[in-house]
Amino acid sequence: MVLLSGGLDSTTVLAIAAREAGQRVHALSFAYGQRHALELGCAARQARRFDAAAHEVVDLSHLGRLVAPATSLVAASELAVPDAEARQRQLERGEAEAIPSTYVPARNTLFLSYALAWAEVVGARDIWLGVNAVDYSGYPDCRPEFVAAFEAMARLATKATDVRVRAPLIDLEKGAIIERGLGLGVDYGDTTSCYDPSSVGEPGSADERPLACGRCESCMLRRQGFAAAGVEDPTRYAD
Amino acid sequence: MVLLSGGLDSTTVLAIAAREAGQRVHALSFAYGQRHALELGCAARQARRFDAAAHEVVDLSHLGRLVAPATSLVAASELAVPDAEARQRQLERGEAEAIPSTYVPARNTLFLSYALAWAEVVGARDIWLGVNAVDYSGYPDCRPEFVAAFEAMARLATKATDVRVRAPLIDLEKGAIIERGLGLGVDYGDTTSCYDPSSVGEPGSADERPLACGRCESCMLRRQGFAAAGVEDPTRYAD
Repeated sequence: MVLLSGGLDSTTVLAIAAREAGQRVHALSFAYGQRHALELGCAARQARRFDAAAHEVVDLSHLGRLVAPATSLVAASELAVPDAEARQRQLERGEAEAIPSTYVPARNTLFLSYALAWAEVVGARDIWLGVNAVDYSGYPDCRPEFVAAFEAMARLATKATDVRVRAPLIDLEKGAIIERGLGLGVDYGDTTSCYDPSSVGEPGSADERPLACGRCESCMLRRQGFAAAGVEDPTRYAD
Repeated sequence: MVLLSGGLDSTTVLAIAAREAGQRVHALSFAYGQRHALELGCAARQARRFDAAAHEVVDLSHLGRLVAPATSLVAASELAVPDAEARQRQLERGEAEAIPSTYVPARNTLFLSYALAWAEVVGARDIWLGVNAVDYSGYPDCRPEFVAAFEAMARLATKATDVRVRAPLIDLEKGAIIERGLGLGVDYGDTTSCYDPSSVGEPGSADERPLACGRCESCMLRRQGFAAAGVEDPTRYAD
């Protein structure tokens, strides 16, 4: 069972589960009103590429409306996605919160819970996700202690008592993630990391290769990752 | 934040949160394709009765379809809701699984996770739920150790680090739950416990007082609870 957003990290995890671990994966994605819903097109294509046994896209649009007051990441929010450089300067001056507005309340908890339900139905023991605690944005639900606590809870929650939550990227820097994925044949040109492609006029068609703003924190981390890996970044950046 | 199904237990918890603890509650219900979707009408009326600040009904119909092969509780399932007496005899002969087919994979985990997201948005510290480990059906996600593990996970999952998962019924017998609710003014005639009202021709209108089959395990526990409390059972049973 792989949580697959269509981003760089989760697509790498899909490759690890399918190619390194040799599992026939079930891929799970969520339409929660995210600004970057075009990632779902990447997810669908990547699931096919790695021969997923099934790929489900769950409609959680209600969640997007519910959390809109608290996160800039959903289209229904009036908050703006922060510009990475401006935010960095604010952080240095102590004027910004450590957890940015792109944090979505309880998102990973909810997505993992959904995966746990489906995993029990299909008899999957492993739930894979692409969280990363090095080059990340300070989200609480990307830390190793969260992953361990979720796994402990999951083993008490269902009939299955041997669920494993596997987060193989958790200690890796972005450049190392990219190197690992390239070694497994990941086509990063058909993944997207941008938080707000609509800000650069991206129509959001699920059939096109994605465009990225180049300015948000996620675009910045992605760019730095390719630079660190010493490989060309295949992303189309607007800026 | 109260998980409110519209059943006997969760309505009692609503009364405890609103009247004993004096909280202005947010009530959260889920439409997940359950056979007993008429409970959602009870939930809406009970939320109004206890003056909830808001009541949200989340459309999780996708979940119902996804888990249908593994649970008899959803309308999309081909499995039948077991007759309580027949099941009891099977259990005594060692022919039935300890966890009945009405168990829904990861349901409480998922519902609590959704509540956790909304709780963070509205700044609610307490998440209340009506699980019960005495007169229950053996579901893993109704045990105290599950509740404790979820709370520990939740404190690492979000910005809030002081979330409390409150399960005030967990050690109570059904009769004691009913006594407590009656003392807080709960109208149990407008709650429903039946797993399969459609089996007795209940049309499922959200505006009517519910009818119950009288034969499923949940009806049996409810009947025994009223008998133990020594009060009249206001439920309309078909059988």
